[in-house]
Amino acid sequence: MKTKKSEIQVRFGQTLRAKRLSLDITQEVFAEKAELHRTYIADIERGTRNVSLRNIERIAVALNCTITELFSGIEKGQK
Amino acid sequence: MKTKKSEIQVRFGQTLRAKRLSLDITQEVFAEKAELHRTYIADIERGTRNVSLRNIERIAVALNCTITELFSGIEKGQK
Repeated sequence: MKTKKSEIQVRFGQTLRAKRLSLDITQEVFAEKAELHRTYIADIERGTRNVSLRNIERIAVALNCTITELFSGIEKGQK
Repeated sequence: MKTKKSEIQVRFGQTLRAKRLSLDITQEVFAEKAELHRTYIADIERGTRNVSLRNIERIAVALNCTITELFSGIEKGQK
């Protein structure tokens, strides 16, 4: 579902982008790894997608990390 | 989106149920706290909902925990 930005979506997107860049791969290569569409990855990184649990799992797998590690980066320094 | 069960959805649902019960509150009370519908919470606990990021955040807030803590319970003992 394409949505307005929300804080959690923006933070998720920023973390995804940072982790993808640290793997030194393009959105296109990452999208293929995660079996998602490149424009969908671009939207997520931009904070305009309310990603579902199953796609969050695919993204974590493609980033070689757990969902916990992914959110740990997202929520770090938040509280 | 109501979907077939997937492993991640089932584990998410089991963890939600366990954490809700540990707070000693009903699905109805929890649903009100999370500003979600009671039947939606029931479906999530049953593993038939592919919950979105924004609703995952509402659930964590209503459970008084972070998303990281929630997934840490879900992924524990998985790998």
